[in-house]
Amino acid sequence: MPMPESMVPPFWWEREQLCYDRGNLRFAGEGVQELARRFGTPTFLYSGRRIRENLARVEAALKSTGLAHRLHYAMKANRFAPILTLMATERLCGIDACSPEEVMHATGCGFKETDISYTATAVSNSDLDALLRFEGLHMNCDAVSTIRRLGQRAPGRKIGLRINPAMGVGYGENERLHYSGEATTKFGIYKEQFEEALETAREHNLTVTTLHLHTGCGYLSQQLPVWETILAEAKTFASKIPGLERINLGGGLGVPHTKDDTPLDLSAWAAAIKRTFEGSGLTIEVEPGDYIVKDAGLLLLSVNTVETRQATRYIGVDGGFNIAVEPAFYKLPFEPVATRLRQGDTAPVTVVGNINEALDVFAEHHPMPPIHEEDTIALINSGAYASSMSSNHCMRGQFREVLLF
Amino acid sequence: MPMPESMVPPFWWEREQLCYDRGNLRFAGEGVQELARRFGTPTFLYSGRRIRENLARVEAALKSTGLAHRLHYAMKANRFAPILTLMATERLCGIDACSPEEVMHATGCGFKETDISYTATAVSNSDLDALLRFEGLHMNCDAVSTIRRLGQRAPGRKIGLRINPAMGVGYGENERLHYSGEATTKFGIYKEQFEEALETAREHNLTVTTLHLHTGCGYLSQQLPVWETILAEAKTFASKIPGLERINLGGGLGVPHTKDDTPLDLSAWAAAIKRTFEGSGLTIEVEPGDYIVKDAGLLLLSVNTVETRQATRYIGVDGGFNIAVEPAFYKLPFEPVATRLRQGDTAPVTVVGNINEALDVFAEHHPMPPIHEEDTIALINSGAYASSMSSNHCMRGQFREVLLF
Ligand SMILES: Cc1ncc(COP(=O)(O)O)c(C=O)c1O
Ligand SMILES: Cc1ncc(COP(=O)(O)O)c(C=O)c1O
Repeated sequence: MPMPESMVPPFWWEREQLCYDRGNLRFAGEGVQELARRFGTPTFLYSGRRIRENLARVEAALKSTGLAHRLHYAMKANRFAPILTLMATERLCGIDACSPEEVMHATGCGFKETDISYTATAVSNSDLDALLRFEGLHMNCDAVSTIRRLGQRAPGRKIGLRINPAMGVGYGENERLHYSGEATTKFGIYKEQFEEALETAREHNLTVTTLHLHTGCGYLSQQLPVWETILAEAKTFASKIPGLERINLGGGLGVPHTKDDTPLDLSAWAAAIKRTFEGSGLTIEVEPGDYIVKDAGLLLLSVNTVETRQATRYIGVDGGFNIAVEPAFYKLPFEPVATRLRQGDTAPVTVVGNINEALDVFAEHHPMPPIHEEDTIALINSGAYASSMSSNHCMRGQFREVLLF
Repeated sequence: MPMPESMVPPFWWEREQLCYDRGNLRFAGEGVQELARRFGTPTFLYSGRRIRENLARVEAALKSTGLAHRLHYAMKANRFAPILTLMATERLCGIDACSPEEVMHATGCGFKETDISYTATAVSNSDLDALLRFEGLHMNCDAVSTIRRLGQRAPGRKIGLRINPAMGVGYGENERLHYSGEATTKFGIYKEQFEEALETAREHNLTVTTLHLHTGCGYLSQQLPVWETILAEAKTFASKIPGLERINLGGGLGVPHTKDDTPLDLSAWAAAIKRTFEGSGLTIEVEPGDYIVKDAGLLLLSVNTVETRQATRYIGVDGGFNIAVEPAFYKLPFEPVATRLRQGDTAPVTVVGNINEALDVFAEHHPMPPIHEEDTIALINSGAYASSMSSNHCMRGQFREVLLF
């Protein structure tokens, strides 16, 4: 089979710090095969430089709005301590946390509590008690129930309200990722309950300083028109809160997963924010996770089995969906790439993990150059929602994480 | 709203050891609310008695075939050490393991290596090296590649072959649970590669003593006709291996998830085995996971939030899909039940977890009696593939496990 165009280097995902050099994959300035030899597999490699670049790009876009702004990193995407400490020591961003343990982990890694914004769902009283010990922590409430229970414990405090504008975007049309939209979701305060929420805050003498919304994930340029509508809706909510100081627009910025994806145009994204909130006096907050760490991560796996079953060529690797769950949970494509481009014909292969479950498949009928047993392959875009969601299913949960500078 | 018939006790899932007593839920002879008070939540309760009964039922069905047989428990379903040790000390069953760590955990909990059957996929050389240190361990190979690499390391050993009869059953028509069937899957050796597999075994002087197949999960009575066809196909494979001693029919026995499910008729299941293998001289092995532990487990969660969003009533609890993953991964129903039947009208509620993800929903528009904040609810059928697949996503991974006798 002749090489289809997509299989001739450079590949769509190649960039200066992730590319082939004479057929050998390099990442963050190092040879990937040598790293695999040194650390073994499965190993997550993270590029500190890429993380810095991603944060700097969002920061620059926010700056271009001319508005006051704050950038938080959603640590649920990846809580590997060295990554958090890198961000904290270099003061690259604040943190978006969603559980008391996350708040403690972030402060343990070097963040000040005043740099942490807390937004969770189904918050318990014991969560509240633990959180209120952090007096400088900013808390956004996503339910009237939370406002009431927080107010009973800490009357007079400043809070935020997470609202739900009843519209949103997920990667493409992925129903598994809808945070808002036509059907009611579990997140935030809807228009129908907004007055009750404000009233409950007043009753407990809570000052609402922040409006928060998070309306999906994986936004690329294609989703920008929806983004505009969401912002307009958020502005309507904001106009109903006298004395509001900040608007937190959540995360949701996406990275391309396939060669057909058009990257998010950050200046267009920021221009929409500017258009909507210019002159409002509000500080703009954002809290991306995916965008900051996803393409800064590479999961190295060893090929242990090359096997033909019926007419399909299977590549079996030493890690499973339990450590890189996005294809199984969200049907997101997770592109496997060779760490060494062997001579020979490109052919479709199905890349599968080592868990005894039918959904443990990383890629189906995916064109790859020849792959042999004992080769190392890499899954690109493994920096977010992979290690942080990993389980020890089948007791196959072991892996290593390495931050490269 | 008057109580719909399904909401008037006794409920479809009630049984002697899991039922209401004057409106209070009892499990394994104990009051569930008191257990929640003592252990906190989230807590998985397991009934040792139910596990024994489930194993005994399968054992009796196997016995009714009049054929030699062995019962293994698929520990991937739940590896909580006390459960394994209960089984080992009372000699209730052997073990089906699928990773070197599982083999070590099982032996560490009291199982002899000769009582462990190993069946995995994408087996690495280092897996093989670790496994071969257990000389009495029986290994089933699911790929020609594995046979070759095992043969190189341990020529002369007895092995099993996991085959794929290219037909199978998943819960209803759930495509996420197809282990075999029309599309090629990653499991086992297909008819097309069977001769090569036997030839590879011969080359390395490996004796094939066992034929293994596992063709789906969640079999209820409705699936018995497919089961018959699978057995017939297995017999055809078996007839091609001279000197075969055992046939391992895998797991896959299901339990009802909703009131509309008809329980698996174990005697019909066993009768089909008898019809197919009577006179063959083969020992019958089975290795259920789900059937043994699923309905022996109850997940206790505290209600922290009762909130109306638009027109939907939400019940927010202190655990998420990261500790009870079946609804999110497989869209399996996971029935939440009240631990205390309050007076009042039954109404539909949506039960959601405390993870910031749209798919963190346990039940939608599910009729329940009145539920208040601080109540404890229980998810029935939580004994399998819940704790064993749990993750620390959002750092909400803490829970307790308690084996009750
Ligand atoms: C409230 C909130 N903020 C931020 C994020 C981060 O989203 P993303 O990683 O898509 O940017 C999430 C993700 O679930 C979230 O729920
Ligand atoms: C080889 C094998 N045996 C047994 C089982 C147990 O299946 P179940 O829990 O559905 O009985 C599995 C489940 O994945 C399996 O892959």
